[in-house]
Formats: sequence, C-alpha cells, structure tokens
Amino acid sequence: MEHSSERLANTRIVLVQTSHPGNIGGVARAMMNMGLSQLALVRPERFPHAEATARASGATGILSSAMVTNTLEEALAGCVRVYGASARLRAVSCPTLDARTAVGESLGWSQDNPVSFVFGRERSGLTNEELDLCHCQIQIPCNPQFASLNLAAAVQVVAYELRMGAVSPPGELAQGPVPAASDNMERFYAHLEQVLIETEFLDPAVPRFLMRKLRRLYGRAQPDQQELNILRGMLTAAQTAYHPRKT
Amino acid sequence: MEHSSERLANTRIVLVQTSHPGNIGGVARAMMNMGLSQLALVRPERFPHAEATARASGATGILSSAMVTNTLEEALAGCVRVYGASARLRAVSCPTLDARTAVGESLGWSQDNPVSFVFGRERSGLTNEELDLCHCQIQIPCNPQFASLNLAAAVQVVAYELRMGAVSPPGELAQGPVPAASDNMERFYAHLEQVLIETEFLDPAVPRFLMRKLRRLYGRAQPDQQELNILRGMLTAAQTAYHPRKT
Repeated sequence: MEHSSERLANTRIVLVQTSHPGNIGGVARAMMNMGLSQLALVRPERFPHAEATARASGATGILSSAMVTNTLEEALAGCVRVYGASARLRAVSCPTLDARTAVGESLGWSQDNPVSFVFGRERSGLTNEELDLCHCQIQIPCNPQFASLNLAAAVQVVAYELRMGAVSPPGELAQGPVPAASDNMERFYAHLEQVLIETEFLDPAVPRFLMRKLRRLYGRAQPDQQELNILRGMLTAAQTAYHPRKT
Repeated sequence: MEHSSERLANTRIVLVQTSHPGNIGGVARAMMNMGLSQLALVRPERFPHAEATARASGATGILSSAMVTNTLEEALAGCVRVYGASARLRAVSCPTLDARTAVGESLGWSQDNPVSFVFGRERSGLTNEELDLCHCQIQIPCNPQFASLNLAAAVQVVAYELRMGAVSPPGELAQGPVPAASDNMERFYAHLEQVLIETEFLDPAVPRFLMRKLRRLYGRAQPDQQELNILRGMLTAAQTAYHPRKT
C-alpha cells in the first residue's frame, strides 16, 4: 500500500440511507481516487445495485468490502472521532468546522484509531439524533445562494482534503489522551439519562433538549476511557446512594 | 453578488470537447455551488442537451450563459493566466503545480484580469498543442494506483479550492460560547466534590487526584453559564433523591 493510503486506512466514510445507488458508486470512485478504502452504508435503499457498480467505474473492491449496517451506531463502532457533514447549521449543535480544519484534526487521531466522516440522505441530510452521535459538524464552504452539493461531490471534496492532508508531511499530531470510543460514550449517555430520570431532573415527557446539551458539553471535553470510567462510577455511586437496597 | 463570488467573477472554467452532456451539467452545478459563473465550452459534442440541464440541478443559468467556441484560443481570449488540468505529466510540459498552489496564484491575477482553468476530454484529456496554450499544468493529487477522476469531480475539486481561497479566514466557522466565569466554575467543583463525598465515591481521606482529574475534564469542555446551571441542577437533583428530607 502506498504511504498516503496507509495514512488513510483508519478513515471511514459512512453514508446514511442513501437513496440512489449511483451515488454510492460515485462515492466509491471518489474514495478510491483519493486512496480511501473503508466504506460503511447504513440502511442503503438499494444495494448492491448495477448502477452503483457502473458509477464506481472500477472501484468495485470498495463496494464489495463495504460494511452494511442497520444503525449508525454500528457503523461508528470503535471510532474515536466522528464528523457529520451537514449543509445547514442546527440550533443546538456540536462545534462546526470547515472540511479542511476537520480533516487536519482527524488525521491526528486516525494515526492510531478509527475515525468516521458521516454523510446524510440526498434530500434531508442527517437527523438531529444522528448529528448527536457526531463530535463535530463539518461544513463545506458553498455559495450561500446555491448550496446543493451532490452527495458524491461532497465526499469528493472531503476525500480530496484527506489526501491533501495525507500527502503532506505529518504535522503536529493531536495532543492529549485518546478519546473513548463512541460506543462507550453512548453507554455513558444512556446511563446519565437514566440517572437524570431517576432523580427527576429529566422529565422524559418534556426532555427539552437536555441530553443534546449534555452531549455537546461532554463531546467538547472528549473524555478518555479512564475519565469515562470515573463518570460512570459517579453515576453508579449516586444510584447506590438513593437506592441503597440495590447494592 | 456576495463577496466571495465577486472575487471569482474573473475566473473561467473551460471544457474542451466534452463527450457527455451530463458532465457539462455536473460541472455547472459544481461551479454554482462554489460561486463560479463563467463557463466556456470548446466544441462540445452535444450541447445544449436535456441531460446537461438535468445534471445541472438548478444551475441552468450557467449553462444558458456559457460561451461556446470553435477553438481553445477563442475561449481563452483576454486571460492573463491559463491553467491546464491534466492527469498525466507530459514529456515537454509547462511548470506543474498542484491545484491548491495554482488556485492561490490565480486569485492574485484574477483580481483585475480574467484567468482560465482548462479541462480536457473525458478519455484523452488535453493534447500537447492545447497544453501549449496553458501557462501552467495543474494536477489534482490522486491515488497513483487509481487516478480516474470524473470530469465533474475534477472541476469540483478546483472550484472548491477557488472558493476556499476566496473566502477568508478559514478555520472554525462557528464562534464558541462564552465560558462561565471561573468563580462560578469553582462553586460547581465544590458542589461536585460535596456530592461525590456524600455518595461515597470520593473518600476525603484518600482523594487520589479525583478532583484534579475532573477539573481537567470539565476544564477542557469549558462550559458556558447555561451548561453550568444544568450541571449544578443535576447535582441538586441527586442530593434531593438521596436526601429527600432536605427539600
């Protein structure tokens, strides 16, 4: 494997509920051109499909080795950083980076750990719940009067930035501890939510974006596994305190 | 016209003898997304064409105002700099720049004068005679084992670089929230420590740097005042749950 592709071996492209198989093929071609190999498809509408193979134009190895999953969570298993591509900014959102900045950051993490770039549906993008699973929202700078990047074009731009980043001499690697994997973060959020409901701080009938706000806060902190263990321990200690019979 | 598109008003995209009208449409869409408006077509095989209009996906103004010429020389009239995109290097060639470097240079020239980026035929690219009309050859970095960028994808990458160059400054788009004042952070840490002692998660006799670790974690997150209120509320809810008489 040539050096640049090796630097991109931990970088995954995740497509959520893609409608048009041709777009999946276009994405595979864009990926292979730029030296990316890991594709994950969450509930694609039609896959495998002749149109995907045709548009892949030779990049069929990426299609045949693509991981197909039922949930976004499965597709993100093990990833220490998740970047969600979104055309529009949300009211309550994670930090937003432009594609170049996000890619630069991702290449620091992906030296040793998997990272994902997530792209939503052709028409409606990613849901807020799906963006909740992302650490950062990324934007591709566009003409504000006509922002309608095709899915394959959006992946092309990000893949190009990844290659540009991978061919340049490795710069400063990301500092700090390795963030906990996203599936472990999800278990923490589930535990936290349970405690907040049990302590009546969170009313499940009127959630008021509370969990989304907390995700944003803890997502910024990027806890490592040891810190996550402390947070989980704090929650269990609280549960033991108000339900001592459970111990 | 927004500022970035104005900075790109002198930048022309020139397609030479394009075979597939769909590619012309894809190019128009990529251009409009990135704020480019000037398209020149040298002897397109089929144009105008319904497939071009369909793939343009709304960017039809660029198609209808496209200049159609018989020769590349006509399409380049007035240009002070001409960049020729080519997948492969020629034996006798002009200087070769990567797309980013070429775009940076072009934006200097295009403040006052037209410049062109020329893209060749889908299969055979530009002839040596056509490259002779270019001041520079540009290359888009690709996986050397699979360099087969689609025409629209190649224009997409160059148009994206043009937009990145025209917008400034790059970096984080969204402003971060204002972090809570440090005295309020201290009150939060004191409250957190109290709850951890009450829930017996923290033994004051053997503190083991726990608070320092938590300070490091929350310090990285830099909560704003609203987030800090949520964290304080969670602590109070836990206290109420295990000491209901205190409410």
